[in-house]
Amino acid sequence: MAGKLYAIGTGPGASDLITVRAARLLETLDVLYAPAGKKGGDSLALSIVREYLGEQVVIEERHFPMTADAGEKQAVWDQVAADIEQDVQAGKQVGFVTLGDSMLFSTWVFLLARLQGKVLADGSPLDMEMIPGISSYSCIASAAQFPLAMEQQSMAVMSCTAEPDVLSAALQNHECVVLMKVYGRFNQIRSLLAELGLLKHAVLMANASMATEITYRDLASVDEQAKLPYFSTIVVNRAWNA
Amino acid sequence: MAGKLYAIGTGPGASDLITVRAARLLETLDVLYAPAGKKGGDSLALSIVREYLGEQVVIEERHFPMTADAGEKQAVWDQVAADIEQDVQAGKQVGFVTLGDSMLFSTWVFLLARLQGKVLADGSPLDMEMIPGISSYSCIASAAQFPLAMEQQSMAVMSCTAEPDVLSAALQNHECVVLMKVYGRFNQIRSLLAELGLLKHAVLMANASMATEITYRDLASVDEQAKLPYFSTIVVNRAWNA
Repeated sequence: MAGKLYAIGTGPGASDLITVRAARLLETLDVLYAPAGKKGGDSLALSIVREYLGEQVVIEERHFPMTADAGEKQAVWDQVAADIEQDVQAGKQVGFVTLGDSMLFSTWVFLLARLQGKVLADGSPLDMEMIPGISSYSCIASAAQFPLAMEQQSMAVMSCTAEPDVLSAALQNHECVVLMKVYGRFNQIRSLLAELGLLKHAVLMANASMATEITYRDLASVDEQAKLPYFSTIVVNRAWNA
Repeated sequence: MAGKLYAIGTGPGASDLITVRAARLLETLDVLYAPAGKKGGDSLALSIVREYLGEQVVIEERHFPMTADAGEKQAVWDQVAADIEQDVQAGKQVGFVTLGDSMLFSTWVFLLARLQGKVLADGSPLDMEMIPGISSYSCIASAAQFPLAMEQQSMAVMSCTAEPDVLSAALQNHECVVLMKVYGRFNQIRSLLAELGLLKHAVLMANASMATEITYRDLASVDEQAKLPYFSTIVVNRAWNA
């Protein structure tokens, strides 16, 4: 049997929010690559899929540094891509798990850039397949019963690391705006939403679908000093009240 | 047992792209509401979930007219909302299926607007839960191995029914733009992409994840007279070559 690589989106956190296709596939894998957790614990992506794994699977955790040093990051991606290629070359069914969807704001894309079009030592192309996952904002909309966009409307998915004028333009140009990576930037974002009269049309959710999920429908009431969890996202919908 | 309503996103088309949560739930439903198919056939949403349904389920197909007559549409939504409310009131586990994700460009939101905050005859609130689904563009990105956005980038999800200057602005302001509802507007959209130098950064996919899936990586080669399938979507990523 020829080796193959599968990139699998785990969805936002709950194990039963992965797709049926991913659940079935996970049972058959020989090797699963997962981003390493902090402090020696399971990675979040790994903990989401653990219940579906077959007994034969070998787990390969890899640490992806959150550093600004581009050279250091690239060396890690090069190494993980080489390791995966070697496993596929050896005829293994190899998985790589990422939170949410693997094609949106995901480390997977750096590996895809290295492995797409790759030819193995025997001259055959490296076979790979991606299995989509539920994005956090889709889960947040459902859990908060707060719609994203409908009919002629549009949605923008932004990172809060963007410049304030870029975020402001998006909030004016689209009925729905998803603000990812709120962590550490909540006060500035809240001021911007207040300025644009959007506080009543915004919902903040942290750790969507996990046991620690928290929802704030009244952003004005969130304590300025409160440390929001790392996975905090704001969904704004001008056409709907929070 | 108290009645409850579940809105279930079926994902883009393949039965195994629904979530494990949705699959488990579908087995237990008493009633399933589905948009009616054309010409007496199964609705697409219904055909996606049929294999998961329990034997006890009663299927209620409802025709949602694609008319410009707002009054006619509203009368249908009012009636379906009333029918669902009656079933929940009677203690039933009621499902409503929609293609893709139920919170994005979905008929479900019109029902949500009617049922949110509803109080039943016995004074209890109408209990409801939404189960997210994979959006078509997420499936397209995976199937075409063509990423959406990463790091500081942003993504806009637009309907091609928007004005050309609105689409043009989105294509200039976001690295990734998803163009939904291409059907009948392909030539204008292709001209716009050509004008902005984006033809090489666009992928068109119709019927993603279905047996009839078609992918075009060279939009210039698509026959102008060709009638694209109804479910045709273009994904543009300025930072990636198609």
